[in-house]
Amino acid sequence: MMGGNDQQAYDRGTSLFSPDGRIYQVEYAREAVSRGAPSLGVRTAEGIVFVAMSRASSTLMEAESIEKLHKLDDHLGTASAGHVADARQLIDLARRQAQGNRLRYGEPIGVETLTKFVTDHIQENTQRGGTRPYGAALLIGGIENGEPRLFAADPSGTPNEWKATVIGGGRQDIQGVLEEEWEEDLSLDEGVELGVRALAAHEDEFVPADLAVATVTDDEGYRTVPEPEVTEAFEAAGITGDEEDDAADSDAADEDDAADDEE
Amino acid sequence: MMGGNDQQAYDRGTSLFSPDGRIYQVEYAREAVSRGAPSLGVRTAEGIVFVAMSRASSTLMEAESIEKLHKLDDHLGTASAGHVADARQLIDLARRQAQGNRLRYGEPIGVETLTKFVTDHIQENTQRGGTRPYGAALLIGGIENGEPRLFAADPSGTPNEWKATVIGGGRQDIQGVLEEEWEEDLSLDEGVELGVRALAAHEDEFVPADLAVATVTDDEGYRTVPEPEVTEAFEAAGITGDEEDDAADSDAADEDDAADDEE
Amino acid sequence: MMGGNDQQAYDRGTSLFSPDGRIYQVEYAREAVSRGAPSLGVRTAEGIVFVAMSRASSTLMEAESIEKLHKLDDHLGTASAGHVADARQLIDLARRQAQGNRLRYGEPIGVETLTKFVTDHIQENTQRGGTRPYGAALLIGGIENGEPRLFAADPSGTPNEWKATVIGGGRQDIQGVLEEEWEEDLSLDEGVELGVRALAAHEDEFVPADLAVATVTDDEGYRTVPEPEVTEAFEAAGITGDEEDDAADSDAADEDDAADDEE
Amino acid sequence: MMGGNDQQAYDRGTSLFSPDGRIYQVEYAREAVSRGAPSLGVRTAEGIVFVAMSRASSTLMEAESIEKLHKLDDHLGTASAGHVADARQLIDLARRQAQGNRLRYGEPIGVETLTKFVTDHIQENTQRGGTRPYGAALLIGGIENGEPRLFAADPSGTPNEWKATVIGGGRQDIQGVLEEEWEEDLSLDEGVELGVRALAAHEDEFVPADLAVATVTDDEGYRTVPEPEVTEAFEAAGITGDEEDDAADSDAADEDDAADDEE
Amino acid sequence: MMGGNDQQAYDRGTSLFSPDGRIYQVEYAREAVSRGAPSLGVRTAEGIVFVAMSRASSTLMEAESIEKLHKLDDHLGTASAGHVADARQLIDLARRQAQGNRLRYGEPIGVETLTKFVTDHIQENTQRGGTRPYGAALLIGGIENGEPRLFAADPSGTPNEWKATVIGGGRQDIQGVLEEEWEEDLSLDEGVELGVRALAAHEDEFVPADLAVATVTDDEGYRTVPEPEVTEAFEAAGITGDEEDDAADSDAADEDDAADDEE
Amino acid sequence: MMGGNDQQAYDRGTSLFSPDGRIYQVEYAREAVSRGAPSLGVRTAEGIVFVAMSRASSTLMEAESIEKLHKLDDHLGTASAGHVADARQLIDLARRQAQGNRLRYGEPIGVETLTKFVTDHIQENTQRGGTRPYGAALLIGGIENGEPRLFAADPSGTPNEWKATVIGGGRQDIQGVLEEEWEEDLSLDEGVELGVRALAAHEDEFVPADLAVATVTDDEGYRTVPEPEVTEAFEAAGITGDEEDDAADSDAADEDDAADDEE
Amino acid sequence: MMGGNDQQAYDRGTSLFSPDGRIYQVEYAREAVSRGAPSLGVRTAEGIVFVAMSRASSTLMEAESIEKLHKLDDHLGTASAGHVADARQLIDLARRQAQGNRLRYGEPIGVETLTKFVTDHIQENTQRGGTRPYGAALLIGGIENGEPRLFAADPSGTPNEWKATVIGGGRQDIQGVLEEEWEEDLSLDEGVELGVRALAAHEDEFVPADLAVATVTDDEGYRTVPEPEVTEAFEAAGITGDEEDDAADSDAADEDDAADDEE
Repeated sequence: MMGGNDQQAYDRGTSLFSPDGRIYQVEYAREAVSRGAPSLGVRTAEGIVFVAMSRASSTLMEAESIEKLHKLDDHLGTASAGHVADARQLIDLARRQAQGNRLRYGEPIGVETLTKFVTDHIQENTQRGGTRPYGAALLIGGIENGEPRLFAADPSGTPNEWKATVIGGGRQDIQGVLEEEWEEDLSLDEGVELGVRALAAHEDEFVPADLAVATVTDDEGYRTVPEPEVTEAFEAAGITGDEEDDAADSDAADEDDAADDEE
Repeated sequence: MMGGNDQQAYDRGTSLFSPDGRIYQVEYAREAVSRGAPSLGVRTAEGIVFVAMSRASSTLMEAESIEKLHKLDDHLGTASAGHVADARQLIDLARRQAQGNRLRYGEPIGVETLTKFVTDHIQENTQRGGTRPYGAALLIGGIENGEPRLFAADPSGTPNEWKATVIGGGRQDIQGVLEEEWEEDLSLDEGVELGVRALAAHEDEFVPADLAVATVTDDEGYRTVPEPEVTEAFEAAGITGDEEDDAADSDAADEDDAADDEE
Repeated sequence: MMGGNDQQAYDRGTSLFSPDGRIYQVEYAREAVSRGAPSLGVRTAEGIVFVAMSRASSTLMEAESIEKLHKLDDHLGTASAGHVADARQLIDLARRQAQGNRLRYGEPIGVETLTKFVTDHIQENTQRGGTRPYGAALLIGGIENGEPRLFAADPSGTPNEWKATVIGGGRQDIQGVLEEEWEEDLSLDEGVELGVRALAAHEDEFVPADLAVATVTDDEGYRTVPEPEVTEAFEAAGITGDEEDDAADSDAADEDDAADDEE
Repeated sequence: MMGGNDQQAYDRGTSLFSPDGRIYQVEYAREAVSRGAPSLGVRTAEGIVFVAMSRASSTLMEAESIEKLHKLDDHLGTASAGHVADARQLIDLARRQAQGNRLRYGEPIGVETLTKFVTDHIQENTQRGGTRPYGAALLIGGIENGEPRLFAADPSGTPNEWKATVIGGGRQDIQGVLEEEWEEDLSLDEGVELGVRALAAHEDEFVPADLAVATVTDDEGYRTVPEPEVTEAFEAAGITGDEEDDAADSDAADEDDAADDEE
Repeated sequence: MMGGNDQQAYDRGTSLFSPDGRIYQVEYAREAVSRGAPSLGVRTAEGIVFVAMSRASSTLMEAESIEKLHKLDDHLGTASAGHVADARQLIDLARRQAQGNRLRYGEPIGVETLTKFVTDHIQENTQRGGTRPYGAALLIGGIENGEPRLFAADPSGTPNEWKATVIGGGRQDIQGVLEEEWEEDLSLDEGVELGVRALAAHEDEFVPADLAVATVTDDEGYRTVPEPEVTEAFEAAGITGDEEDDAADSDAADEDDAADDEE
Repeated sequence: MMGGNDQQAYDRGTSLFSPDGRIYQVEYAREAVSRGAPSLGVRTAEGIVFVAMSRASSTLMEAESIEKLHKLDDHLGTASAGHVADARQLIDLARRQAQGNRLRYGEPIGVETLTKFVTDHIQENTQRGGTRPYGAALLIGGIENGEPRLFAADPSGTPNEWKATVIGGGRQDIQGVLEEEWEEDLSLDEGVELGVRALAAHEDEFVPADLAVATVTDDEGYRTVPEPEVTEAFEAAGITGDEEDDAADSDAADEDDAADDEE
Repeated sequence: MMGGNDQQAYDRGTSLFSPDGRIYQVEYAREAVSRGAPSLGVRTAEGIVFVAMSRASSTLMEAESIEKLHKLDDHLGTASAGHVADARQLIDLARRQAQGNRLRYGEPIGVETLTKFVTDHIQENTQRGGTRPYGAALLIGGIENGEPRLFAADPSGTPNEWKATVIGGGRQDIQGVLEEEWEEDLSLDEGVELGVRALAAHEDEFVPADLAVATVTDDEGYRTVPEPEVTEAFEAAGITGDEEDDAADSDAADEDDAADDEE
């Protein structure tokens, strides 16, 4: 996206601006997110839906250990993309903050409050010397006062609220589907279907086992959607998961290969 | 604005002067502000008016979450431009200081006092090593002893008082309109109209929903102006918001695209 | 894997991203792991199996002192690859944490919990300035609530759970054998055989004395497998250890030469 | 003043000497002062006179907020030139020290004592690493034991006492007038006239509103001279302020444009 | 004195040696001293004489404020050369140490003891990182146990005792006169004459007002010699101060121009 | 061993990896060890033997002050190679730790425990910034529970146990002799002979006075072997020390010249 | 001694190794010592003799203030060479340690103990960042338990014991004389003669006043040898000090010129 030798002078120091007002290290951290597998969130009338590409690089890897989706609190969850180890740090930070809020105030932390706590921390790592930005983005979503809310936190530390959005690789294709198909009154199941369909826009050969799906609703709180239900969503979404096209056969250069996220 | 290889020697260290007495990192931070969408402030006889371009990059983004305008205290508000995450830090700083003043002294902080507190902090980040300047500018305005006052704080940490001014992209065009049309005895409504008209000088295809408008008056304090009233101002200003020309159709290279502010 | 002069600008600072979103120092630390002798882990129905190439560079070196396998707690062990001195630091960290858990809570630490404690520490060394990443990878395995679990921790600080995997040199060949031959219901002895066979896929001239083997089972806890039993596994695996082809005769350029691991 | 590539090696580190014994960062900070609008001080028999070019860059900027002249204590004032935000820090430092002296000793601080306190602080920023010099100069003047005294503090941290001097842009022309026309027994009004005339030597098209004038006398202490009196001084000085030639018409490249001081 | 590109590698870090065993930053600090006006000290049978070139760069500058000579204690004085602001720091350090000695021990500090205290501090600034050497040299002289003693402290932190010596510009010419004419049994007046004559060897067009002269004797302690006495010394020394050749007429390139010392 | 310009980018920072996974500063520290005179250790059935080349560079240097062999505790000794001043730091560290163990636990520290304490410290200096690795290697040997044990600690911080090994210059030749001739049941005297013979393989012109020899046995603890006994070992080893070929005559380029070890 | 551009990469950081295992900053510090005037020590049967070239660069400099020889304790002295200000720091360190030992233990510190205390401090400055090595060497000698002992401490921090040795310029010539003429049973006077003769081997035109001589004996402790006795030694040594060839006449390029030691 940026080229030539001139930029070399500006991108070595994490806390320096380039002549055109960019902070290159932040831009490169965004590139680290784009290299990762996509994770998306959909706000529905009934709650938040998270769908993440979570395919193992080897048949011997336990796909669950890729952990793109995490519960943060009873009614709060998160989806990550980008450098896995960095994302883990942010998720730990968010979880500790959510727990601390419960301990101190006896009530759950708000979705927006928590997101801004995380983005403030991210921003500090883009301004102070002696550290690099986080190479990860998060979606944070949940139920706040009975209403579903969904936020995204990017490597610059900017928080934004979304009806539906995606972080990680293939963003342009996937966001396009979301923009075309999202509706205010989606049911939770329709939200899962939309999420699956949107990911399919970017990469059509994947099976239910390649996905991690979770929902946050007022009734059930954070819930990991089991594989049979994901398979139903596949069918409802009209996608024919090609079972033979397993990870072991996917081409090596696939940028969405989950196990190589952080590479 | 500055070119050639010679400057490379001076712009890497945040706290160094160039031979011609400039601090390049501060100049580049100003460039970061110019890359953002414009925010303006107008002092009227009745109070302060803030108008900010706040258009979402996607139809799925909640435009309110772009948050260019913030209440700082009952009779104090701020408008930001530039790197969003940096602006958030400054706004938090300002808000905490305003709250602290109320707690310590039982009265609201002055507009000038608060502005100078913020600019002192900004200046320190341009002189100490180990950090970069803030890539954001703020307008801080409100009612002080019954009088409306409006200040601007730029990335060098210079505070200045204004009758009306703009920060962010398109500054030259917009400030031109303000200089031509501003009058001492503007009513609040006329101030909003002037603000809308000034922004239109820079970019003519936008709709009321693309704007955030707020006012600070002695009677009502800080008040977010609802969209219907903004629409009225559009009409009064004689601007025909082209409803079809939505964010999704705007050209990708548009420098004022709000969601790309901090990019 | 990466070439040219352009990367030089990005790989000097441990905490900087390159324009394509990589952290070169982490990539190079992975290269340090690849230069070392391989260590593998196999999860069997009965417990975890660790097999490590541990061949001395001289007949006068005590091969046991190479120490690729370590007991961490009664039912917890680890296998390392890469820079030996770095690995020792991580193993000490893990062992102290396991002991501390016993002291504080009176019960053994979980395999996943311990792995994530270690990877969090590894990640910090990839983000903070003033230090380099660890040039070592670990496999951590053991019995947790009666179930065998096996994790890998790489130089980026990413934890992943595996049925069977290998770290260090010859990863591609060895992982291939594991993927083809691993089965859910392997016995412990079959696990050792599989491990030996997989290493043989990478380098066929080695003798039982060149290997370190350990198992972790519910009954016996962490157990170093004595050389006679390793010899039996060789025979069961159908490998004819060429006794004459001793370390002294191996070619100098052999990248798996254990004593040169850290070089 | 200095040229060529050779100096690049020496001017990056704030605390390094060049082979010819210069500290380039200090020289460049002086350049930053020269880029600013001029401020001058005149010692008269009756007291100290400060005159500063303080012209706003826009008709909408409140010229008073440019603040080139400040009261430091009852009988102490200061005039600044150069980087505005830097000057503000020094002025705050001086004011706090003056206040502290009153609190501790119950009497006003001496002009020389205060100046040296400020220059010691300036010097430290030219020797320690991790910071840049201040890009501002100050004139500090007042009544000490009934006698008017005037000092200048430059970016190297050198204090000097003056009968009359100028800091900022156009120094050579303005100082020339002061040297030719200054006399020991000037009245205060004659001092103001001399100041106005000296500034006119550098730039002849300005109006009373473009100037800030203040005096410090034993009787009245620090006093801001109101515009009507400044206008009288214009007439007495024989300058025909060209009222039409307002800031909006001044050429953009004018180095003395007050609002661009700190640029 | 040193040239070529090769030295660039060594002179950027204050605490590094060059291949030929030099510390360039110290050499450059000596160059800063050589750029300043000369100050000299003469040990006579009756006491110490200090003579310093102290000519103002403008007729409006108060020459006394140039302050090349300072009293440190009742029987202790100092003369400085080089970077004025740096010299001020060293003089403050020396004065505080002299005062502290009186407070702690109830007696004056010795000339040698004080000199070595100062040079130890100077040396530390040549070895530690994060700071530059002092660009100033001092002569420290006084009466110790009834005997006059004179020391010099240079930018490397080396103390040496002298019968008579000079620091600053024109060192070679001036020291030559001192070496030829100094005698053990000089009276104080002869010492002043010798000092004036030695300075004249370097620059012959100066007047009594261009000099600062002080003496330290057992009887009178530190004493600033008033201008009339300096004029007598001029006459005794056979120098015809050319009164018309005032500072304002001296050529701009004059390296001894006092007010440009620190430039 | 490594060449070209490309490596320059990686070897300046002590805590950085090169693209091929090496830590150049550690490799260069190993080179510093190779530049030094050789020291070897031999484990015999009766105890540990240390033999070090310890030849003075001048006939006036006291050879004992070269100090390649040190007692660490009653039954613990060490032999060093490489940068002498660095080795001294490590030996002090080891000795203090051995003493501390006695004080705390009332018993001698184990050979392996002490070695790993030292190597952990060495490793830290290869990972943290702000320091360089130690340019020295140690052999640590002694009696532990009645058994002789011998370890080596290299500049990477890797500990290994050996039957017999050598550190410093001429490693390849000397280790070859040790590998050919070492036997499990060597007597202590045979161990000394083997050590002398092995050193002779690298450099044949030396005399008993050029060597330092020490033994650690259960009965006698650490014992410096006096020169007459070393001479006997020479004779038993069949080496004709050429008495005339003294240090003064050795060729200047001799890399094993003991006094130049650290150069 | 070392040349070419390649070394530039390694010699900027004080704590870095070069590819061939050298620490350039230490080598350059040694060069700083070689640039200084020579100082030598001779161990005689009666005590230690120190002889130092201590010639003033000007007839007006007090030669004693050059201070190459210092008393450290009653029976302990030191001679220095190289960067004068650096040597002073080391000598202060040594003297304080000697005094502290007396205070703590009521007895004098040993010569070897003190030397190693000093060299440990020197070594730390070669390994830690943020500082440069000391550009000075010391000879430390005295009477310990009735026996004279003499040690040298070089810029790497290596301590060595000597019968007689020299530090500083002309080392090769002077050490040659010492090696040829030193004998175990020298009387103190013969030691002084040998010292004078050895210095003459390097530079034959000097007079007794150019030398500083001191002795340490059991009877008299540290004693500065007065000039008449030095003159006797000159005569005994058969050197005709050419009285006319005073410092003022010596050629400017003379590397042993004492006053330029530290340059």
